Amino acid sequence: MYRNFKFEVISSGSKSRLGILRTPHGDLQTPTFIFCGTKASVKGMFPEQLKKAGTQIILANTYHLFSHPGSEYIKNRGGLHKFIGWNGAMLTDSGGFQIFSLGHGSVSNEIKGKRSRVSMLARIEEDGAVFKSYWDGSTQLLTPEKSVKIQRDLGADLMVAFDECTPYHGNKKYTEESMERSHRWEKRSLEEFERNNDFSQALYGVVQGGIYADLRKRSAHFVNEQSFFGAAIGGTLGGSKEQMYEVVEMATGELNSSRPIHLLGIGGISDILRCIELGIDSFDCVHPTRIARHGGALVKRVYRDAADREHINLKRAQYSVEDDPIESDCDCVTCQTFSRAYLHYLLKANELLALSAIAVHNIRFMNRFMEEIRVAIAHDNLNEVRKKWV
Amino acid sequence: MYRNFKFEVISSGSKSRLGILRTPHGDLQTPTFIFCGTKASVKGMFPEQLKKAGTQIILANTYHLFSHPGSEYIKNRGGLHKFIGWNGAMLTDSGGFQIFSLGHGSVSNEIKGKRSRVSMLARIEEDGAVFKSYWDGSTQLLTPEKSVKIQRDLGADLMVAFDECTPYHGNKKYTEESMERSHRWEKRSLEEFERNNDFSQALYGVVQGGIYADLRKRSAHFVNEQSFFGAAIGGTLGGSKEQMYEVVEMATGELNSSRPIHLLGIGGISDILRCIELGIDSFDCVHPTRIARHGGALVKRVYRDAADREHINLKRAQYSVEDDPIESDCDCVTCQTFSRAYLHYLLKANELLALSAIAVHNIRFMNRFMEEIRVAIAHDNLNEVRKKWV
Repeated sequence: MYRNFKFEVISSGSKSRLGILRTPHGDLQTPTFIFCGTKASVKGMFPEQLKKAGTQIILANTYHLFSHPGSEYIKNRGGLHKFIGWNGAMLTDSGGFQIFSLGHGSVSNEIKGKRSRVSMLARIEEDGAVFKSYWDGSTQLLTPEKSVKIQRDLGADLMVAFDECTPYHGNKKYTEESMERSHRWEKRSLEEFERNNDFSQALYGVVQGGIYADLRKRSAHFVNEQSFFGAAIGGTLGGSKEQMYEVVEMATGELNSSRPIHLLGIGGISDILRCIELGIDSFDCVHPTRIARHGGALVKRVYRDAADREHINLKRAQYSVEDDPIESDCDCVTCQTFSRAYLHYLLKANELLALSAIAVHNIRFMNRFMEEIRVAIAHDNLNEVRKKWV
Repeated sequence: MYRNFKFEVISSGSKSRLGILRTPHGDLQTPTFIFCGTKASVKGMFPEQLKKAGTQIILANTYHLFSHPGSEYIKNRGGLHKFIGWNGAMLTDSGGFQIFSLGHGSVSNEIKGKRSRVSMLARIEEDGAVFKSYWDGSTQLLTPEKSVKIQRDLGADLMVAFDECTPYHGNKKYTEESMERSHRWEKRSLEEFERNNDFSQALYGVVQGGIYADLRKRSAHFVNEQSFFGAAIGGTLGGSKEQMYEVVEMATGELNSSRPIHLLGIGGISDILRCIELGIDSFDCVHPTRIARHGGALVKRVYRDAADREHINLKRAQYSVEDDPIESDCDCVTCQTFSRAYLHYLLKANELLALSAIAVHNIRFMNRFMEEIRVAIAHDNLNEVRKKWV
């Protein structure tokens, strides 16, 4: 069923593991980070810049591309890889993530248990989810079958079954009902996938169940029993970092360990490290590229003040006279070329280059971080990585 | 006086000539095009991308950098080359160009004789020009001495004497008075330059005189008599293309042919070719990078419709289904990676990448155009270049 895909675990510590995920567009060394190319472009980045920064895989969002320019249009252009000029591996999500973030407020906040303004744009029916297009405001229905069909058109290597991204502030009854519906949707996704499988793509199931251990366990077992290639952990991860790690462990502890496990929407440095120790193989998050657009540069501990949290804000006046690069030991083009002072100036002057320059650094930072983690797993010394990076 | 600079004419046709302009930051093959990095950044471009596209020299604008972040700030950062990470040759203008564009309407329009709305923000005194900062609205005085001092702080290889950029719609009396004042300002620029010459920079004089042959002749002789390294042709070039070529010829016909001759603010393909045939060695214009930000991609004749004028507008709907690159024979990263359809989509989706991708192509286009012109001068067949490019 997945004859052009393979996941091999090379070595593993207690739960952390080093693997190779083989796809038709290259082998991914895991653990790995997936960068967001939401609207079929990692903002401001040429594919060659992504490659040079060590990027293995990027994603595009089904919801955005379905709204505009449409999946059939991209299919007619030869699929996503050809259309965007990226010959590495790709993932598309199911579209549910964005649709339910419109329903439940910011998904990012919901995953992390922060309450945010709820504007119920989506209506959930047994058949699928009704939502409004961000592009033209039209009302659309997304079903499991349609999500899979769209993802077929887009042609990414890895695709994700259609589910509801459950909110933190749903109660257990709602979370359970939602989970059961997601399971029905995921089965329909898988059936649609199997009807048209041409072996160029592989499908991930999604574990739901919110913050409830019994539900997460049931959902993990459901995913294990279906012929998914991999498992993604979705929905809310609770209201604190500790709860996030507990919820992740509820799932990874139950999931079939021969399949790759993806954690949806998490991209903080300390979170990634902890979750790798709980058995996660891949991550995606808009964080590294989004903060770049606001002047946020990721730095290791030695390059920041105690008050900074994993990144520095280059808009701050203090950087206007710092002639060193973001990180002196970084081999990215930005650190090899520009000072913090210049980047500060570019941000103040609203120069485009600031955004792509900081993004290049943040992408290289994440890729180096994952590289060091992989080496550390092989040598069983993840704590050294923690000391240096967190 | 200019011991680290040298201009050598290698071969010349009737008037067109192939040369080498030696600077402390490398030898420029002339004729050459200078790309605008107005606020110390060629918008959206990494220096390595400029280099890869064959760029020899870029400029920064004294007016903008004087207003923000200030020339002393850049001096304290080690000068422009170090600050922006560009180790090739650079030019700064005198600041007059922008100041008088505030006074006389768009300089670009004025040079080309198009009338535009005049909002007199600048006041001209014998000592210099009073203008408002674009950055904070403060009133500033720019004198020849100050312009040279600022350009010293910035540290570009080539600098330009301070003059008034005279408008097309000034009459002969005004043009003559302005020219005489510009000559006094240029002498003061040269005196200030000589007082602090450290041999790292070279100064261009500017030929004024508007559209009047006798004034252009007098001004060219003035520049010849002063110890400038090179000559720039400034001020209005008339109201039509034919008049532009006449005005350029009025100057080049009189200028000392052992010095390099720069034409300020002209960047059209056919204009460049004609002006090279009149003896111009270098050009600068914001055109190739500015049109990129509006979806304009420069193309040779074979790649455009009869209605297009030297570039195509990728925002037009017809390009949404064109799977070929901007130019099939172009070796730039953009043409090697992206289709016209993808660039059209990126523009419609307001994705940052569109801007830098089209800019990369336009920069490579201009550099290849100049490369082919240089080869053609050596073989005395500029008409072949005209058939292909214009």
